[in-house]
Amino acid sequence: MHILVLGAAGMVGRKLVDGLVADGRLGKAEITKMTLHDVVAPKQPEKAGFPVEVLSGDFAIAGVPEKLIAGRPDVVFHLAAIVSGEAELDFDKGYRINLDGTRMLFDAIRLVGGSYKPRVVFTSSIAVFGAPFPDAIGDEFFNTPLLSYGTQKTIGELLLADYTRRGFMDGVGIRLPTINIRPGLPNKAASGFFSGILREPLAGKEAILPVSEDVRHWHASPRSAVGFLVHAGSMDTAKIGPRRNLTMPGISATVGEQIAALKRVAGEKVAARIKREPDPFIVGIVAGWPRNFDPKRSLELGFTTAEKSFDDIIRIHIDDELGGKFVA
Amino acid sequence: MHILVLGAAGMVGRKLVDGLVADGRLGKAEITKMTLHDVVAPKQPEKAGFPVEVLSGDFAIAGVPEKLIAGRPDVVFHLAAIVSGEAELDFDKGYRINLDGTRMLFDAIRLVGGSYKPRVVFTSSIAVFGAPFPDAIGDEFFNTPLLSYGTQKTIGELLLADYTRRGFMDGVGIRLPTINIRPGLPNKAASGFFSGILREPLAGKEAILPVSEDVRHWHASPRSAVGFLVHAGSMDTAKIGPRRNLTMPGISATVGEQIAALKRVAGEKVAARIKREPDPFIVGIVAGWPRNFDPKRSLELGFTTAEKSFDDIIRIHIDDELGGKFVA
Ligand SMILES: NC(=O)c1ccc[n+]([C@@H]2O[C@H](COP(=O)([O-])OP(=O)(O)OC[C@H]3O[C@@H](n4cnc5c(N)ncnc54)[C@H](O)[C@@H]3O)[C@@H](O)[C@H]2O)c1
Ligand SMILES: NC(=O)c1ccc[n+]([C@@H]2O[C@H](COP(=O)([O-])OP(=O)(O)OC[C@H]3O[C@@H](n4cnc5c(N)ncnc54)[C@H](O)[C@@H]3O)[C@@H](O)[C@H]2O)c1
Repeated sequence: MHILVLGAAGMVGRKLVDGLVADGRLGKAEITKMTLHDVVAPKQPEKAGFPVEVLSGDFAIAGVPEKLIAGRPDVVFHLAAIVSGEAELDFDKGYRINLDGTRMLFDAIRLVGGSYKPRVVFTSSIAVFGAPFPDAIGDEFFNTPLLSYGTQKTIGELLLADYTRRGFMDGVGIRLPTINIRPGLPNKAASGFFSGILREPLAGKEAILPVSEDVRHWHASPRSAVGFLVHAGSMDTAKIGPRRNLTMPGISATVGEQIAALKRVAGEKVAARIKREPDPFIVGIVAGWPRNFDPKRSLELGFTTAEKSFDDIIRIHIDDELGGKFVA
Repeated sequence: MHILVLGAAGMVGRKLVDGLVADGRLGKAEITKMTLHDVVAPKQPEKAGFPVEVLSGDFAIAGVPEKLIAGRPDVVFHLAAIVSGEAELDFDKGYRINLDGTRMLFDAIRLVGGSYKPRVVFTSSIAVFGAPFPDAIGDEFFNTPLLSYGTQKTIGELLLADYTRRGFMDGVGIRLPTINIRPGLPNKAASGFFSGILREPLAGKEAILPVSEDVRHWHASPRSAVGFLVHAGSMDTAKIGPRRNLTMPGISATVGEQIAALKRVAGEKVAARIKREPDPFIVGIVAGWPRNFDPKRSLELGFTTAEKSFDDIIRIHIDDELGGKFVA
């Protein structure tokens, strides 16, 4: 099985690649080749049991998706995207990469034609939903994104469903919860603080909380994200039917509950490193975001989280990123 | 007020233009100029109380929308589209006109910038919904189109909402029911028979019914369509909020109920001109179509139908198209 990962140098992409290299297989299929692509050159994985081609460049340029598809990958993980804050600040860039790029990729696959029909896993987002919401958003709630990013992801979902219905590809769109704790440096996502208020204090640093503690949101660990991707890449898609875009399971928690979990897992002193500095731009964006879901379909289809509580989310970060230790 | 109509030579476009020319105003505003555009040259209206420019060409070509917007119309009615059957048969054409064309138009408006923020009325469709459905589709039901046409209309709606939220335009998307009775020649829409089984018999001709009599669907007269467009073009959009796409009111009727209405209004002999010839392509498409709605929002926002029953729909056709007479 040949796997192509777009956005392979990103946070989720790197963890997915590490996982696939460690497993040597995707579901029951043995991996025989992997192609990694990102505008930031992806790292060449060490000790892979199969050839890994590493490419860099902008995928959202006419002709590039065709080249990426030229090796006829069996599974395409499409993770390349401009995040919410940046897509909101740079209208053209967001539409060019998130909408045009995604469509060019799907078209490159479509235009191969014949019997070529790869599994395509597209990372959508809960930003496809916009307030006001019911208490828990069900699987049939409508898409009224309140950001250009969410609009672009919704359009990606629609294209994925139509191209799949037409028989051009075998698509699965997975709406990732906000991935928490996001390791590494803060990125331009407006959701960055959800991780920042945990990650920075655990590293002995101060963190800014730009919203109030009653803000509720939908979270999953990076481990869960990789699990979702692997399942979407290897599951029997006949069970999904035509509604190919699925809200992933997650944990609903308020910022206050996040901080309480941090206190339980790491102590009061760590939690005291969070400084409250309301930011109207972030407050405004987050006000329109989903808080809670009832993701029956994805649970029935076998998607599962790696964590049972927000405490687990913090422990996973300490284990996977900090070698089991944090700055008390 | 300067009004631009795209798709002005189409069935709904012609009726809209006739109505606007007759009224001389849109809502409370006096019409001072009108520009009509279509790939089929629109007819120059007679006796208009204002200058009417008539243009023809393909609007979905780079540079054309800019020219159409150069006169800075205050209201744009965007009705130009490839219908469902054709978009399904010609993938590239459907996406090029319904998606790219719509986006180019919105971008042309966006790129004018400054204080230019026209009202844009976009004719979407109930094909943005796909089965399985609840008994009556509510205003928060999700979009899972089962046709490329519905996918393209949904994407148009999403763009309209995002461009409006961003302040580039003042958009209203109206999901028209199937317009019945469609006058003139049959078109390539898969929904064509819903009108054909009434229009042809009323004209003394045979009509083919390609589906079974229990097929339920959502209908409105051409008069209602013009009423919806006029209201969308003149209403106070502040009342709509960010959810800019609205399902229009209509009448839910089965094909059997349509035929019963035909018998009541025109007699058994007319209804006997309907021949049953099941067509699997049409049956398949129609199986995924909406049957009934609960369009609370549009009703609250002042959208109203011109008819109270399916009998009225038939009578409106006899009055407006047949000069009050049909072939008994
Ligand atoms: N992390 C989250 O909380 C979250 C939540 C919902 C959805 N998602 C989606 O999951 C995917 C992965 O998320 P992530 O957190 O790893 O994001 P990330 O920003 O860390 O990774 C995205 C990668 O895409 C690459 N990229 C962007 N534009 C590109 C282009 N034009 N050509 C080639 N590469 C390009 C970036 O360089 C980056 O490495 C994204 O599609 C994101 O929208 C993430
Ligand atoms: N009639 C219905 O039952 C119905 C239902 C739901 C939605 N709609 C929508 O309402 C609108 C009007 O419907 P209608 O029944 O009048 O359709 P129609 O086919 O009669 O009119 C559409 C017009 O658009 C024009 N057009 C198509 N491509 C063009 C292009 N590239 N450049 C310029 N003009 C182009 C056609 O020439 C045609 O005159 C359409 O957008 C349609 O999708 C109609």
